Amino acid sequence: MPLPLITSASNPRVKHAAALRESRRRRKSGEFLIDGVREIDRARKSGVRLIEVYARVERGAEGIPAVPDPAKALLDEFERDRFPVWPVERSVFAKMAFGDRNEGVLALAEAPRRDFDLFESKLPDDPLLCVLERIEKPGNIGAVFRSADGAGVDGIILADCGGDLWHPNAIRSSLGTLFSVPCVTASADETIRWLRSRHIRIAAAICDAALPYSEIDYTGATAIVLGSEDEGLTPIWHDRSKTGPDSAAIVLPMRGIADSLNISNAAAILFYHALLRRQTSRS
Amino acid sequence: MPLPLITSASNPRVKHAAALRESRRRRKSGEFLIDGVREIDRARKSGVRLIEVYARVERGAEGIPAVPDPAKALLDEFERDRFPVWPVERSVFAKMAFGDRNEGVLALAEAPRRDFDLFESKLPDDPLLCVLERIEKPGNIGAVFRSADGAGVDGIILADCGGDLWHPNAIRSSLGTLFSVPCVTASADETIRWLRSRHIRIAAAICDAALPYSEIDYTGATAIVLGSEDEGLTPIWHDRSKTGPDSAAIVLPMRGIADSLNISNAAAILFYHALLRRQTSRS
Repeated sequence: MPLPLITSASNPRVKHAAALRESRRRRKSGEFLIDGVREIDRARKSGVRLIEVYARVERGAEGIPAVPDPAKALLDEFERDRFPVWPVERSVFAKMAFGDRNEGVLALAEAPRRDFDLFESKLPDDPLLCVLERIEKPGNIGAVFRSADGAGVDGIILADCGGDLWHPNAIRSSLGTLFSVPCVTASADETIRWLRSRHIRIAAAICDAALPYSEIDYTGATAIVLGSEDEGLTPIWHDRSKTGPDSAAIVLPMRGIADSLNISNAAAILFYHALLRRQTSRS
Repeated sequence: MPLPLITSASNPRVKHAAALRESRRRRKSGEFLIDGVREIDRARKSGVRLIEVYARVERGAEGIPAVPDPAKALLDEFERDRFPVWPVERSVFAKMAFGDRNEGVLALAEAPRRDFDLFESKLPDDPLLCVLERIEKPGNIGAVFRSADGAGVDGIILADCGGDLWHPNAIRSSLGTLFSVPCVTASADETIRWLRSRHIRIAAAICDAALPYSEIDYTGATAIVLGSEDEGLTPIWHDRSKTGPDSAAIVLPMRGIADSLNISNAAAILFYHALLRRQTSRS
């Protein structure tokens, strides 16, 4: 039995979805929306619990979704699994969806837990981690996840990046890797305490550091720490009494007229470099 | 003598500037606009010929620019050089400027020449070059310039990227490095012909190549060639009868669930890796 067609903007499901545009409402409800076929698919394969799915339907089309082929295939899978898919009339669907994407599928999901216990359970021995401090733009956070996924970074710690990881721009620019790369949100203090308790070496990217990024050893448990392009890392990361005697302040050489790299580019360079060095040392 | 205040949207200067939003008009006129203090400053220091400058003025403020401090310093320099700066009333200025930036300074500039003769004259022996093929998004092109500038890449060839390099998003995401990194626009055919005539080795990033990027030699004249995230490089770059017996197809390993990196991240990884190898081999 298909679920009844949603045709009214005052339907409580529609109102709930529209409210989830606000970060505050996402935080409060512990729920968020996933837009796009690839992103929904990656979320579910990464173990994110989906609550229900909405599919766009043309008026008068008798509940048959008006969606492109990749979305059809995904909806077929949901039907096979008897997972609840609500048909939604096109104009009403537009009110639920965030952006300008046109795939006609939207999922309501439960925000996964993000604590150190769960995080740790997903890590290998001697992980390579990334710490982002005070990165606020969701698109930048998502782009770093995408690079981390590609390079094979084991996990990301978001230190003082604000409480909302489930912004649609973060999901989109991550291509859904936001769901697959292990992640925890914490304060900078908690992050340093946890890293030191686990004997994970801190390599903090600091623009006036003397040591080029290529001069340190990346074998063993290592956390690459990056701050915002404009502000850099807060003072705590410059203080070796806090970050530990084995910590290092590293710099990416800037050989041109600009004085910084885009955060996701800096991250990508350091991730691939570190992974290459770790690989080479193993073989 | 200060120039007279522009107060009307039908002023020919205002109309010309507004028309330059269109790529077609930029191409036809050979002129473009630069928005932002840092970008204007970098353009002029990189030898871009500025034609004139517009500064935002509050109504009734007697021609005194209403701009933040960094813009004031730049305008003072123009005044010292007796360079023409037109005061423009705020609401009219908003019609000339493209985006949401609020620095209140805009420059009209002459599009620099982009041919192989000029390009070549700016290159060192054995350059490290980047070729971008069919990258259409101006923001992506700008981001690659920023990484190239940081890494120390000697020049960029835009192969079949469309004729318009002077899009405001390209300028902005490059942070003005669009003006300083030597650049030429050409077709893929012309690019390959030029590279081979100069004995510059082609290293083409191809997602199903067998050879990891870290396995080739980057010393000597080398061109790193990148295509779009979705489409990759066109067949010509896969054909060694075209790209030469010393050419290489290289791959950036993807260790996660996503199947590609963002173009500017892929470029940044390859640029820094190549430069590091070249540096190490020299020392």
